[in-house]
Amino acid sequence: MSFKEKGLLVVLSGPSGVGKGTVCKALRNRGTKLQYSISVTTRKPREGEIDGVHYFFRTREQFQQMIKNEKLLEWAEYVGNFYGTPIDYVRQTLDGGQDVILEIEVQGALQVKRRFPEALFIFLAPPDLKELKKRIIGRGTETADLIESRMTVARSEMELMENYNYVVENDQVDHACDRIESIVLAEHCRVDRLIEKYKNIKGAD
Amino acid sequence: MSFKEKGLLVVLSGPSGVGKGTVCKALRNRGTKLQYSISVTTRKPREGEIDGVHYFFRTREQFQQMIKNEKLLEWAEYVGNFYGTPIDYVRQTLDGGQDVILEIEVQGALQVKRRFPEALFIFLAPPDLKELKKRIIGRGTETADLIESRMTVARSEMELMENYNYVVENDQVDHACDRIESIVLAEHCRVDRLIEKYKNIKGAD
Repeated sequence: MSFKEKGLLVVLSGPSGVGKGTVCKALRNRGTKLQYSISVTTRKPREGEIDGVHYFFRTREQFQQMIKNEKLLEWAEYVGNFYGTPIDYVRQTLDGGQDVILEIEVQGALQVKRRFPEALFIFLAPPDLKELKKRIIGRGTETADLIESRMTVARSEMELMENYNYVVENDQVDHACDRIESIVLAEHCRVDRLIEKYKNIKGAD
Repeated sequence: MSFKEKGLLVVLSGPSGVGKGTVCKALRNRGTKLQYSISVTTRKPREGEIDGVHYFFRTREQFQQMIKNEKLLEWAEYVGNFYGTPIDYVRQTLDGGQDVILEIEVQGALQVKRRFPEALFIFLAPPDLKELKKRIIGRGTETADLIESRMTVARSEMELMENYNYVVENDQVDHACDRIESIVLAEHCRVDRLIEKYKNIKGAD
């Protein structure tokens, strides 16, 4: 049979403080079959970090060149370093039939949507904004002013939910993981993804 | 919070011989939270069958009236008796927030699609047509001619797959059930179903 199903690109995003990192880590620990994207960065490798495993380490010039050549699905600057998602690595993994998950900020997700609209956009949402505030305060690293400004950002990020395909409430990490796994499995059953496969088997009796 | 999520209407269909009944029974045995639709029929109740539990028993005249008044989501005649799915029962159950599953033939599913396009249409597919033929022969109730004509029908029913949202391969009953449960869970996470809920919580911190 010539049909080979491609992997899905799963973009997990949501307001900061909602628990994207925790949910991704839990998915990894469960052994969910998802390939984690490797980011490109201009920051120096830390002790033990391996190029092509933890990050793709590139110079500032190389990174600029990647932006120019549209080799990044999304990118951002963070405390003086650049971080981005290399499109070639993602495409190769998908072509190999593996699903890839990207855990990124809301702004990055919107960039991915422009470049890769066929991806699956999952918005990780807090049970309510009170709860989000609690989680941000709980980190204990922010001043009252910073907390207020992060809440303002979070509120405006909630508005962007309608650009996503799915919303997963992070009421409990385990439930959120169940929902994400179900979404990926369900998407693999969509008729529009499989119709070619069944065209091949028709008449083959 | 005023938002109340409605149940989903799940239509499970596919060529006869594919194992719709077996899969539905397995879902029931697992305790999957799905309400089974109760059919209306003009056939006489058998010993122990209760009106409103096993079937809604109606006269031929009442049934014709239901067709006329568009009270049936779909209906068909089978060995001299009429069978149909009552739209009021389905709507009330969905409004109460419960998901309803209908296990019906392909032609019936197309009728439901015209009346209720927002339902979730799942096509249960055989791993291949050889396997379907084996299953039909395995029943041991059909002559060679009947088997051939059922295969012709099955082939043309496979063509109708593109009218469905999802295709679930019935390679193993347990896997098929996993996929169906995932599809229902995933559909409950679709942004277009939940956006109203989140509009209500915005600003509520």
